[in-house]
Amino acid sequence: MSRIAYVNGAYVPLRDAGVHIEDRGYQFADGIYEVAVFVGGRFWDLDGHLARWDRSLRALEIPAPMSERALRLVIRRLVTINRQGDCYVYLQASRGVAPRNHPFPIEGTPPSLVITVKPLNLTKLNANAQKGISVITQPDIRWGRVDIKSTGLLPNILAKELAKKAGAGEAWLVKNSKVTEGGSSNAWIIDAKGVLITHPMGNEILGGITRQTVIRCAEKLQMRVEERAFSVEEAKSAKEAFITSAMNLVTPVISIDGCRIGDGKPGSIALRLREAYVAHCAGGDA
Amino acid sequence: MSRIAYVNGAYVPLRDAGVHIEDRGYQFADGIYEVAVFVGGRFWDLDGHLARWDRSLRALEIPAPMSERALRLVIRRLVTINRQGDCYVYLQASRGVAPRNHPFPIEGTPPSLVITVKPLNLTKLNANAQKGISVITQPDIRWGRVDIKSTGLLPNILAKELAKKAGAGEAWLVKNSKVTEGGSSNAWIIDAKGVLITHPMGNEILGGITRQTVIRCAEKLQMRVEERAFSVEEAKSAKEAFITSAMNLVTPVISIDGCRIGDGKPGSIALRLREAYVAHCAGGDA
Repeated sequence: MSRIAYVNGAYVPLRDAGVHIEDRGYQFADGIYEVAVFVGGRFWDLDGHLARWDRSLRALEIPAPMSERALRLVIRRLVTINRQGDCYVYLQASRGVAPRNHPFPIEGTPPSLVITVKPLNLTKLNANAQKGISVITQPDIRWGRVDIKSTGLLPNILAKELAKKAGAGEAWLVKNSKVTEGGSSNAWIIDAKGVLITHPMGNEILGGITRQTVIRCAEKLQMRVEERAFSVEEAKSAKEAFITSAMNLVTPVISIDGCRIGDGKPGSIALRLREAYVAHCAGGDA
Repeated sequence: MSRIAYVNGAYVPLRDAGVHIEDRGYQFADGIYEVAVFVGGRFWDLDGHLARWDRSLRALEIPAPMSERALRLVIRRLVTINRQGDCYVYLQASRGVAPRNHPFPIEGTPPSLVITVKPLNLTKLNANAQKGISVITQPDIRWGRVDIKSTGLLPNILAKELAKKAGAGEAWLVKNSKVTEGGSSNAWIIDAKGVLITHPMGNEILGGITRQTVIRCAEKLQMRVEERAFSVEEAKSAKEAFITSAMNLVTPVISIDGCRIGDGKPGSIALRLREAYVAHCAGGDA
């Protein structure tokens, strides 16, 4: 069965799904996005993702393409139409189509909305997590408002392509000698005392939805969380390290720039957190 | 007559011109662009624009959608098909269509190419230049490789929207107390001694094609050009100020953040440079 996408009011075969060449998302990266997972018949953290969707739109003064209620219905319908079991849902909005000119188009220009789904294999994801990933570090050369989840992802792409070429699963971005976050995930370390450390919220990182939920899970497990910036050196001598994102859940990091973390195997605390996160999202601890 | 666009090998009515929703230009701002003007039957600085097009593609490792020779033919044909007199030509390339994933897609993925033309009224542009424009200053929060002419223009948009709201024609971006450039143009001042000052090339500005040609024109006019960063304070007390870009040519700046430059009227040196630039491009001084 061909996959179906939602594009500006219509459910269309993915292969035919297009936007206008003067869509501001295409010409200016004047748009935002979210990724959420749908597993076992329920959306994980969808409230959080839709709240951030709204925050990103407001930050850029892009009108909401539809109400949150309607958006939930469309997402649900798209998953149903695709007869999708577990999947990722990708949502993207832009400031709409208008003759190319930098300032915002005339008021009333309808924003664009595109939604797609893609199969997700949790068993395979879990198996990968058991192996852990390597990360490399790269200078953080992104713009000053990465707290907005915009589609302007070129620096992220370049960092993640370098990671891939180096056989790594993620690039950790470094600004003023501190790790801000990964190319598409938040970065965490665990120190010798078992304290979880991750960069504080602000303009320098994207406020990860998974990050927030993982903080709550950690606290339930009586783990201490410190939201502060850490250096690459500190990371290299950490007891454990891991990343969080909607697509990676909690994934252990086993090396940084070729330097083994802990004993070079996925850390037990990270794996316990992953389990707790999955159980929480699956409703196991509700 | 409806306008015709060139999209991935086809000449199509602009209203029907689309790209796939999984075009990496749309999902990641993984693309580049150029704007060139066609006036009086000839392209202005097309060699420079196509050389930069090639440089941007190489910097991002995006394969060239076609040879420079073929590209010139397509551009020329598009202008002819549109029965266009004077016009702007807009070229955009992206890394092509692929299932969404940050790293580069598999080798052989064809890059996307979109070209459009838009009427240009040089008489009207010249009349506007006689009035000059105001500029406001804004923090330069763009990424670290703005020398690549990528479509990741969200920070530029936000700055230029603020300028528009303030009744200004451009936003000058300020980094470490120095003006780097405008949201879509290079920034220049002229000091009391008549020396032209503009930010040096490097990762912090886009190497403007018009900027380069204007430097050559200035030198022919025996004007001294200093390529160095200048502060907002220095700019406010300048004798003259102006911007350069393919779309603005040379346009005088008459105020910065509400502070009048010189006597608040377009400066004579800037206007002379504009004339020289137009004459040069129109072939008048060749």
